[in-house]
Amino acid sequence: MRVMVLGGDGYLGWPTALYLSARGQEVIAVDNLVRRTYDTELGTASLVPIADLERRATVWNDLTGRTVSYAIGDITDYEFLTSTFRAFMPEAVVHFGEQRSAPYSMIDRSHAVYTQVNNIVGNLNVLFAIGEIDPSVHLVKLGTMGEYGTPNIDIEEGFIEITYKGRTDTLPFPKQPGSFYHLSKVHDSHNLAFACRAWGLRATDLNQGIVYGHVTDETVMHPELATRFDYDAVFGTVLNRFVVQVVAGNPLTVYGRGDQTRGMLNIKDTVRCIELALIHPAQPGEYRVFNQFTESFSINEIAALVVGALDGEHKIEHLTDPRVELEEHYYNAAHTKLVDLGLVPHLLDADTICRLAAIVREWRDDIDPSVMEPTIEWRATALPDARREGPASLPGVLENVAGA
Amino acid sequence: MRVMVLGGDGYLGWPTALYLSARGQEVIAVDNLVRRTYDTELGTASLVPIADLERRATVWNDLTGRTVSYAIGDITDYEFLTSTFRAFMPEAVVHFGEQRSAPYSMIDRSHAVYTQVNNIVGNLNVLFAIGEIDPSVHLVKLGTMGEYGTPNIDIEEGFIEITYKGRTDTLPFPKQPGSFYHLSKVHDSHNLAFACRAWGLRATDLNQGIVYGHVTDETVMHPELATRFDYDAVFGTVLNRFVVQVVAGNPLTVYGRGDQTRGMLNIKDTVRCIELALIHPAQPGEYRVFNQFTESFSINEIAALVVGALDGEHKIEHLTDPRVELEEHYYNAAHTKLVDLGLVPHLLDADTICRLAAIVREWRDDIDPSVMEPTIEWRATALPDARREGPASLPGVLENVAGA
Repeated sequence: MRVMVLGGDGYLGWPTALYLSARGQEVIAVDNLVRRTYDTELGTASLVPIADLERRATVWNDLTGRTVSYAIGDITDYEFLTSTFRAFMPEAVVHFGEQRSAPYSMIDRSHAVYTQVNNIVGNLNVLFAIGEIDPSVHLVKLGTMGEYGTPNIDIEEGFIEITYKGRTDTLPFPKQPGSFYHLSKVHDSHNLAFACRAWGLRATDLNQGIVYGHVTDETVMHPELATRFDYDAVFGTVLNRFVVQVVAGNPLTVYGRGDQTRGMLNIKDTVRCIELALIHPAQPGEYRVFNQFTESFSINEIAALVVGALDGEHKIEHLTDPRVELEEHYYNAAHTKLVDLGLVPHLLDADTICRLAAIVREWRDDIDPSVMEPTIEWRATALPDARREGPASLPGVLENVAGA
Repeated sequence: MRVMVLGGDGYLGWPTALYLSARGQEVIAVDNLVRRTYDTELGTASLVPIADLERRATVWNDLTGRTVSYAIGDITDYEFLTSTFRAFMPEAVVHFGEQRSAPYSMIDRSHAVYTQVNNIVGNLNVLFAIGEIDPSVHLVKLGTMGEYGTPNIDIEEGFIEITYKGRTDTLPFPKQPGSFYHLSKVHDSHNLAFACRAWGLRATDLNQGIVYGHVTDETVMHPELATRFDYDAVFGTVLNRFVVQVVAGNPLTVYGRGDQTRGMLNIKDTVRCIELALIHPAQPGEYRVFNQFTESFSINEIAALVVGALDGEHKIEHLTDPRVELEEHYYNAAHTKLVDLGLVPHLLDADTICRLAAIVREWRDDIDPSVMEPTIEWRATALPDARREGPASLPGVLENVAGA
C-alpha cells in the first residue's frame, strides 16, 4: 500500500512511517518541520537528540534496505500538497500534520489563530486534494479524546444513539473541547464528516488519548532513528514528564486535585492502531470514529504508578490547575473498535516506566527543569510576557493561506 | 446602550443599526464592505439600489437627528478591531460580520477556505478583543438554524438533555451542518462556548432561520436608507427569490422535491430579536442559544404561498437539488426563548408577499434572470469554470491573518 504520512517528522508521525515501511508499505513522510521551529520559539528541545529528516531516512534505508521517501513543505500550501500527492499517488493518507499542543494554542490570540488556521486549512486542503485527485484514497486523520470533554454520560466512539421525546436518531457525539487546539480538532471532525457525506470520501477519525513512551521496534534500531522526547509544559505529556521529574530529582507536578481522568496509550499501540485502520479501511462515503486509547487513569494514578515503579524518594506537588477542565468528573469512554480489529494493547506497568526512566537517565544532564513549569494560564486571554507577540517567525501557514 | 454592529453595511446589519439607533441606542456600524465586492466577483447586484455606507449614515442623521457612526475595516485585522473597539467602548457587540452564503462557500476550495478563515478568525478576534478590553461586553452573535441539520429528533435551542445508559447530562445539541459556510458557524459556536467557559464572557448565539422581506420601519423612511435585496442563486434566499421569479414571469425554481422544511422569519423580526437579546443580556460566563425564527415551511409550501398571493399564471419547476440535504425529513425545532422575552412575530401572509412583490415590480427592468440559476454543484469539489481561481481579489482577510 502507498501511504502518505503527513507530519511524518513528528513524535508519532516518524515512528508510524517506520512501522509501515518495516511492514512493506511504500511510505512518504511529508512535513514542514515546524515542530522543530516551535522548540526554537519556546526555548525547548527534545530530551533525546533527533536526527534531521533527511538523515533519518538515509539511516533507515542503510539499515533495512527499505525506503521512506520524504517531501518537505507545508500542506496549507495547496500547490505543494497537490504536486506531492500527484507525484506519489497514495492509496491512503495518514494525517498527523497539525499543531498538537493545547497549551501552545492558549498562549495568546496569535497562537490561537495560528493553531486553528493551520489545522483547519491543512485539513481542508487534504480533503480537497483527495476529492479532486482520487476520492478512493482512505484518509486516516488524527483527532483527540479531548474533543469529547468530560460529559456526565458514557462517551461512545464518535456517535451516540439518542432517544428523545419518543424519537430516536444516531447523531454525532456532542463535543465540549477545552482549548483552542482541542477546538481545532472538533472543527476538523465536522469538516471531515461533511466531506464524506458530500463527496463520498472515506475517512477514519482517530480520537487518540494521551500517548506515553518513546520507542517502537523500529526507532530503537539505531540512535539516529529515535523520535522526539518532549517533557516541557507546552509539548510534553503527563507520564513522560513525570518520569523526567523523578529522574531529575524534582517533585512530580500534578495540576489541580489530580482526579482528572484521561484515556492513555503506549506509542507502540499508536503505530499499530494506524496500521489496523489502514488495513481495514472505511467504506466509500463512510466517516467513522475510533477512540484510540487502551486504558484510563487519573493523573494521581499515573503519578502513583511512576512513584511505585522508580526507586528513591519522590514528592508530589499539586499546582493550581492552569487548564479549563473539571477536576472531578465521570469518565467512561468506549474503546472497543480497534480491539475488535485486532489491537492487543501494551498495558502500562512498572517495567514500561522503568524502561522509559532508563532512556531519561541517559540524557539526564540535558534536562532543563525550568521548561516543565506551566506558565500559560488558560483562564487569561494571554501570557503577560514577551511571548505575546506570537509566532510571527513561523514559516508557512499564514502566508500560504494568503497566497491561496 | 453603546452597540457595535459588525457587518453593519449588510442586508440585516444595516437595518439592525437603524432600528437600534431609532430606539435611542448609540450605534457604530463596522464593515469591510466585502459584500459589495462579492457582487462584483459574481456579476450580481442588489435588486434595490443601495447607497454607500457614508451616504446612508448621512441621510439617517439628516432625517432623524440621530447618529449611526461607522468604521470601515476588517475585523480579521486585530489592530483595526481593537482600535475601533477602544475608541467606541461598546457595551454590546452584535456580530453579523461574516461571509453568509452557503453556495458561495461551496464554489471551490479557495472559497471554502476563505469562508472558514474569514468567519473563524473574525470571530476569534472579537472574542479576544472583548476578553482583553472589557469582558463585561455582551456579544450577540449570528449563527444559523442550518447548524443543526435535520436530525430525526426534535431540535432544541442549543442544548439537549440526554439520558443514556442510566445517566443524564445537558450537552450541546449535536450539529450536522450541510456546507462549508454552515460548518464555519458550527466552529464559531464551539469557540464561543469555550470563551464563555474559560474567560467568563457573556454571549447569545442566535441560530437564525431564513430571513425574507426587505423593509423595516426605518429603512422605508427614505430610498437611500434601503437595505440590499438579493435574489441570485448565491446570496438570494428562497422567498425573496420566488417573488422575483413571479414578477419576472419565470418559473419558480424549487430544488429537488421541495419537501425540505426550514425555519423562517420576517426581516422585521430579525431586528426585534437582536434588540430583545440586547435588553435581556446573557449573564457573565453564560453561553446561551436562541433559535431565531417564527414559522417553519417546506419549500413547496413557500412556493404555494407565493403563487397564491400573486395574480397571474405561475409555473413551478423542480430542479435537481444542488445541495447536500435530505429532501424528506422530520423537522420540529423549538423557538420559544425569544417569544418568552417578548417577540410578537410578523407571520407570513399574502399581504406580506404582495408588498414584497410591489417593491420588486418597481425594479422589474433590472432583474437579471440568469443569476437565479444555480450553477454551484455541492457534490463536486469545484465549479468547472473560471470562477475556480477563487476570491483572489477579495480584500482583507487572508492578508490580515498573514499579518497577524
